Amino acid sequence: MAHSQNTASFKEANKKYVENFPEAQGALTSPPLKRIAVVTCMDCRLDPFAHLGLLPGEAHVIRTAGGTAEALRSLIISQRVLGTNEIAVFHHNDCGMTEYDTFRLRTQIWNEAPKDPDGNISVEVSTALEAINFKPMGRLDGSVKADVKFLREHPLILYGESITGWEYDVKTGEITLVNVDDD
Amino acid sequence: MAHSQNTASFKEANKKYVENFPEAQGALTSPPLKRIAVVTCMDCRLDPFAHLGLLPGEAHVIRTAGGTAEALRSLIISQRVLGTNEIAVFHHNDCGMTEYDTFRLRTQIWNEAPKDPDGNISVEVSTALEAINFKPMGRLDGSVKADVKFLREHPLILYGESITGWEYDVKTGEITLVNVDDD
Repeated sequence: MAHSQNTASFKEANKKYVENFPEAQGALTSPPLKRIAVVTCMDCRLDPFAHLGLLPGEAHVIRTAGGTAEALRSLIISQRVLGTNEIAVFHHNDCGMTEYDTFRLRTQIWNEAPKDPDGNISVEVSTALEAINFKPMGRLDGSVKADVKFLREHPLILYGESITGWEYDVKTGEITLVNVDDD
Repeated sequence: MAHSQNTASFKEANKKYVENFPEAQGALTSPPLKRIAVVTCMDCRLDPFAHLGLLPGEAHVIRTAGGTAEALRSLIISQRVLGTNEIAVFHHNDCGMTEYDTFRLRTQIWNEAPKDPDGNISVEVSTALEAINFKPMGRLDGSVKADVKFLREHPLILYGESITGWEYDVKTGEITLVNVDDD
């Protein structure tokens, strides 16, 4: 069995969660009741259910290392298979994901990889490194607008007029609606 | 300004959240305190903070339409840029994402797209439809093992021995650790 520092705490916390699990929650189905998909960062300080007042069953929550483009497949499935008709895109300040750039991350991975006697990394690591696209992250300013614009203009995304853009402040917990139509 | 049914409720709920926002929470930084990345589905019934007893600041949470491969870029950034050394992969039962297959979804999108007088869809929709890879989702049984195996064997993922696989039961809220090493 794999070793994990967090297995015991997950099991203990979940035991209490199950004891208090409401019967009505167990009867919920997969199409989100509020027909919305929330796209936000994987950042450890963000708890979208809490800061948006969402309840289980109400919304899809898509979280990645900051990339809206990466959420595209999930959003299309959310709309076409599970009937959502709104998207809310959240960015936040002090994002750790903005501290790297693609070149720096590739160099870091190369430096950290095991080397053969000639100082070369393995073909497996080299091939995987070439194959992956570490899209550079934009800064908070302007990036919410760009993400909303990207989704609105995408040929496979529906309901463009109900896509909203938001900023979340990790220092205060406050969300702010961004006027994405203002140039 | 874009139209959204949920804007008012988000703002109202967030006002209360900000009023009760602990000062210590505002001082948290982006590297996760528990050094773990949780990968789970975007399903509306899943609230990983609640069912794992996680607090803000403790873990990356990556959520997509069920695909671990889709989480790959985020996981690499989580490990290399923000120092996590564990991954917990969650699948759940009654997943809406297993109700489609790639061919059916493509056909549905084609059927829903506007047609020109000759019955053809636009080049934009057609090109976007060709470009996107709707990876078909596996059923719950066996898929946790396959995802853990995929991550452990990926040349750019570190700490393979601390990757765990779990199942979440949407009917009861219960999590179960999967013995991924058992064949």
